[in-house]
Amino acid sequence: MVKLAIDTMGGDFGVPVAVDAALAATKTNPLLEISLVGDADAIAARVPADHAFTIVDAQEVIEMTDSVADALRRKRGSSLHVALQLLRDGTVDGVVSAGNTAALLAVGRQLLGTVEGVSRPAICSKIPARGGHVWLLDLGANISPDAHTLHHFARMGSALAAIADNNTAPDVALLNIGTEDGKGVEVVQEAATLLRADSSITFTGFIEGDQIFTGGADVVVCDGFSGNIALKVCEGTAGLIGEIFETSLSDANMSDEVLAAVTPAFKSFFAAINPHSYAGASFLGLNGVLVKTHGNSGVGSFSRAIELAAVEAAGELPLKLARQLAAS
Amino acid sequence: MVKLAIDTMGGDFGVPVAVDAALAATKTNPLLEISLVGDADAIAARVPADHAFTIVDAQEVIEMTDSVADALRRKRGSSLHVALQLLRDGTVDGVVSAGNTAALLAVGRQLLGTVEGVSRPAICSKIPARGGHVWLLDLGANISPDAHTLHHFARMGSALAAIADNNTAPDVALLNIGTEDGKGVEVVQEAATLLRADSSITFTGFIEGDQIFTGGADVVVCDGFSGNIALKVCEGTAGLIGEIFETSLSDANMSDEVLAAVTPAFKSFFAAINPHSYAGASFLGLNGVLVKTHGNSGVGSFSRAIELAAVEAAGELPLKLARQLAAS
Repeated sequence: MVKLAIDTMGGDFGVPVAVDAALAATKTNPLLEISLVGDADAIAARVPADHAFTIVDAQEVIEMTDSVADALRRKRGSSLHVALQLLRDGTVDGVVSAGNTAALLAVGRQLLGTVEGVSRPAICSKIPARGGHVWLLDLGANISPDAHTLHHFARMGSALAAIADNNTAPDVALLNIGTEDGKGVEVVQEAATLLRADSSITFTGFIEGDQIFTGGADVVVCDGFSGNIALKVCEGTAGLIGEIFETSLSDANMSDEVLAAVTPAFKSFFAAINPHSYAGASFLGLNGVLVKTHGNSGVGSFSRAIELAAVEAAGELPLKLARQLAAS
Repeated sequence: MVKLAIDTMGGDFGVPVAVDAALAATKTNPLLEISLVGDADAIAARVPADHAFTIVDAQEVIEMTDSVADALRRKRGSSLHVALQLLRDGTVDGVVSAGNTAALLAVGRQLLGTVEGVSRPAICSKIPARGGHVWLLDLGANISPDAHTLHHFARMGSALAAIADNNTAPDVALLNIGTEDGKGVEVVQEAATLLRADSSITFTGFIEGDQIFTGGADVVVCDGFSGNIALKVCEGTAGLIGEIFETSLSDANMSDEVLAAVTPAFKSFFAAINPHSYAGASFLGLNGVLVKTHGNSGVGSFSRAIELAAVEAAGELPLKLARQLAAS
């Protein structure tokens, strides 16, 4: 049995989408026990009569526009705080929220603390790659990490891939602007030296931006500035290509018969390139499982984030991370 | 009349593709006068009898594997050196090469020198964006620029957009990991302050990676590390989506009739997302027009690079850059 708390108030679509996502996730995974945190009346009104979720009331919401300081100090009764308190107290094994990233990072650190040796958690998400996906970190929590921190990212990403993909020796690559030794900024060079010397991970060397998608790495490590840009450029390119594709189709004036014949191919195509298929981002290095889904997540991507949190909790990710980081 | 020298030996496909690209470019632009630099016999054998290109013999080739030091010192008789000497001596107004980027940068600096105030040129390329394209710089020449250098990039990118797009007041944005003030690394903050205070450019603020494609900016400025990653992630995403699309189509088992009906739409789609449509990269800040095309460019993208160099030379880009940079 895995117990999760869902912050139902953080996303753009609030309680209805969060509750429906919880329903979808428990349908897929009957061993999931979910506490829904937020406006108890609104939640109760949305939950079907035959479902027994635990409902935990929390009226306050951290808005996207709230500062981190406000999130930390003025909104201690928020649905995010209450959900994370349940995690800290051991009532649940993980938390999922569609709330604002900076608030998740700050409140998560405050309430859960970080694993020994980690000063700031890293944000990690999987993105599509040839034949599957790749875990990319950091995505913006650490914008100027030192080599030691990049080394931590490699170990934490490996621990996540081991649990989520059942891959005990994931290939780890360092993102750079060239694959030859001596390329890139100094901190990346130093990190490569640390990674090469670390027998607890499988370091495969530098990769360039395009090789994220085709290079066969399981985990790609980079600073949070580059990683955030890489993730968003990937989303932006996919979005633009979707637009161009739709224009190409409508310009082609296909008959209804032709359109009907090609629709299954287009549906599978759009599903594969939809960034929302990959919307769950994990906060690695906290003393607890915390997964964020996009603020504008629909039921599908929100429920995938719940499933990711369930896998991380069942695999005892924070414990394994701590062990990985403590290894000499 | 615009005069260009083409380094025919630098790319993966050597003389044949370079000569055919020169033929294509002169067909589109009859005012172009081209000197073909490289193995004179091979060039003469490829040029049709009714075409009068100037042929300049140069037997040495800078290979992709040559170090910058070798390119600079040991290969002074290379096709790239000879082409750039023609430019330095005023025989031609610009050079196009498919050779190795590091060599172009180094030999270009050595033979042409940089515009006053610029220590290293920036690499700038256009990438697809909603409704057209956007100029992105730097793409890897300056991996840790200071704020002052980022400010230069903004002015140089504006000068290029003014000439290439006939856009006298291009919107310039700074790439960051958030759009609010205070987001991102310090150097980006400092650059924003300089850009806001510069009345010679139209600064529109920070944009995130996905907004490169949809944000309406004409010029996007960033450090060469992030820019290189952004460009290659864009190419990698487009490549992966192309693969997924082809798989979706072949899985759909369409009839020949349906396939024939949708083919025009797919062709226009693939043409729009093909990174080779955007293969010309300009070296901004050199005392002369130098455009690089992909090492594996075909005739189409090589000839587009020639056309870009012709536009830059006709618009006297180096002179305008120097004026832009000297403006207070």
